[in-house]
Amino acid sequence: MEKYWTPLARTLTPYVPGEQPRIPNLVKLNTNENPHPPSPRVLEAIRAACDARLRLYPDPSATRLKEAIARRYDVRPDQVFVGNGSDEVLAHAFPAFFQQDRLILFPDISYSFYPVYCGLYNVPFERIPVDAQLAVQLADYQRPNGGILFASPNAPTGIAVPLADIEALLQANPDTVVLVDEAYIDFGGASAVPLVARYPNLLVVQTLSKSRSLAGMRVGFAIGDAGLITALERVKSSFNSYPLDHLAQAGAVAAIEDEEAFTQGCDAIIATRSRLAAALDALGFDVLPSSANFLFARHPAHAGTALQAGLRAAGVLVRRFDAPRIADYLRITVGTDAECARLVEVLRPLVQAA
Amino acid sequence: MEKYWTPLARTLTPYVPGEQPRIPNLVKLNTNENPHPPSPRVLEAIRAACDARLRLYPDPSATRLKEAIARRYDVRPDQVFVGNGSDEVLAHAFPAFFQQDRLILFPDISYSFYPVYCGLYNVPFERIPVDAQLAVQLADYQRPNGGILFASPNAPTGIAVPLADIEALLQANPDTVVLVDEAYIDFGGASAVPLVARYPNLLVVQTLSKSRSLAGMRVGFAIGDAGLITALERVKSSFNSYPLDHLAQAGAVAAIEDEEAFTQGCDAIIATRSRLAAALDALGFDVLPSSANFLFARHPAHAGTALQAGLRAAGVLVRRFDAPRIADYLRITVGTDAECARLVEVLRPLVQAA
Repeated sequence: MEKYWTPLARTLTPYVPGEQPRIPNLVKLNTNENPHPPSPRVLEAIRAACDARLRLYPDPSATRLKEAIARRYDVRPDQVFVGNGSDEVLAHAFPAFFQQDRLILFPDISYSFYPVYCGLYNVPFERIPVDAQLAVQLADYQRPNGGILFASPNAPTGIAVPLADIEALLQANPDTVVLVDEAYIDFGGASAVPLVARYPNLLVVQTLSKSRSLAGMRVGFAIGDAGLITALERVKSSFNSYPLDHLAQAGAVAAIEDEEAFTQGCDAIIATRSRLAAALDALGFDVLPSSANFLFARHPAHAGTALQAGLRAAGVLVRRFDAPRIADYLRITVGTDAECARLVEVLRPLVQAA
Repeated sequence: MEKYWTPLARTLTPYVPGEQPRIPNLVKLNTNENPHPPSPRVLEAIRAACDARLRLYPDPSATRLKEAIARRYDVRPDQVFVGNGSDEVLAHAFPAFFQQDRLILFPDISYSFYPVYCGLYNVPFERIPVDAQLAVQLADYQRPNGGILFASPNAPTGIAVPLADIEALLQANPDTVVLVDEAYIDFGGASAVPLVARYPNLLVVQTLSKSRSLAGMRVGFAIGDAGLITALERVKSSFNSYPLDHLAQAGAVAAIEDEEAFTQGCDAIIATRSRLAAALDALGFDVLPSSANFLFARHPAHAGTALQAGLRAAGVLVRRFDAPRIADYLRITVGTDAECARLVEVLRPLVQAA
């Protein structure tokens, strides 16, 4: 089978996404999707764009979408890059900024796609340990590097990195790119976007998949100095001229512009998260402080594998990572109140047993 | 601006797509789009999928789409790979198969994205000259190589490569991947897909952008031995878990299954192409024999730049490539009969002048 593969293709260790079974009545709390539907304005905008124009290529520059993001985040359109989900945006950042001689740095516990990108683009890296509370300590990143990459809030812990720490890092590290992956920022973290004006090496990556309920449409974006955006555009235009289809562009513009739906949706998730954290705490779980749309929690008396299996047997999916220090933690997406109640109902006898 | 760029980002020469102006009443014959709208079944399928499910990630494996393609092309689903347009499929083929020590080979006159991919993935290449009639001669590719890549029909000439020549090449070249880019195959060329069963190193790439009128949705696919498909999946899953959004998958399934609309649409283009070729011939143009949805033609008495500019002044866009041997050729997309008539009407005084 491998006869025609390149040496690279043989050595890759691809990312494995959370499973996406299409089983009815499943309580699906394993991939950090938003439990609420996208704004009606988004669905209307997509339907209005679904006509004979689909025979034409989409705008390769996604001009209207970049303008909408620029208005919403108070930057210029030339400070905005868009891609087919934030995964694609992150991927392009590696050949644009990180394919250097020196090691790039990222947390040992973080989004597990980061080392996968390093494999694809042959980027040497060093994992910096999170602290005893599983928090990213940016002081540990002040050393020679080929770039710095971290998520805030971090995945899968949900812990946000303080903005003052990010600014201190930018001041101490002016010579390489600092990429902040803010996929979950809208659920309570402080965004680094306002720092972009002052730090030409800061790239902030966000997505419409979580806070704007559009995982199914694949739209992510980056905000940074125009110099960084130009590098991303050069890589993108060497890979695929039209990564965002016509309907994704139309839907994304509407999603960015519907501020009311966005705010209400995030507030609802944050409120449910508080109730779920309290319920898990009452069951004896250690729950990390989350600024994301998920909780990361373990029970001192029960193995993570057993709890995950028990939940699954009852039709409740959560995610777990077989990695040192976190193997007993469950990563639980904040679903609807009813879904979270069901999770707690299934967990209660599991943790009270034995 | 370039301070934070990698050495690679500095050296890239990105692809430049044909312009996509949104000017009303333009006769747009410059990007080989299909002049006919997508099948009504496709638009219905997309609208039916546009609902609250967009909050969920799409199927990362595009299972239903792979099954539909497998049925249509009489292969197994594990012989099918799908991507965000055939450009993304082609891009992934470079790290999967071509990133080797030896040169890959492709025609000197062909899709101008091929050398761009080589730049992004650091793949050494050699351009093999097309013959005096601008046709690809596969006998010239029988030499040591790290892979072979060509388009049939070729772009921008429209000339198809005979299937017997492709099979002869596969027999003579069993040790590296032969990639046939069939973006335009449905307008009259003989597809190499039936050879996939016998040649484990053959990868055939197609797109829904042209013959299925879906340039706006970004869906391409590859058919090949399961070993080749596995390598592409490994690269894809190291880049982006979900390149095809929920609506693109739904629309693409409907497009692949609507055989009647597909056949009628291709027949209409082929009929219009014959009429347009005859009209250009009558104006004194040399028109290459096209099996694609475009014609490649030059006038012996007029510079390509002048003709392109004259057309543009009258609101008719065609494409031209500033490259040796073809700079005087216009690449003219086969539009509707009315669009083609307008092109001829504008060209007539231009070629009869002086």
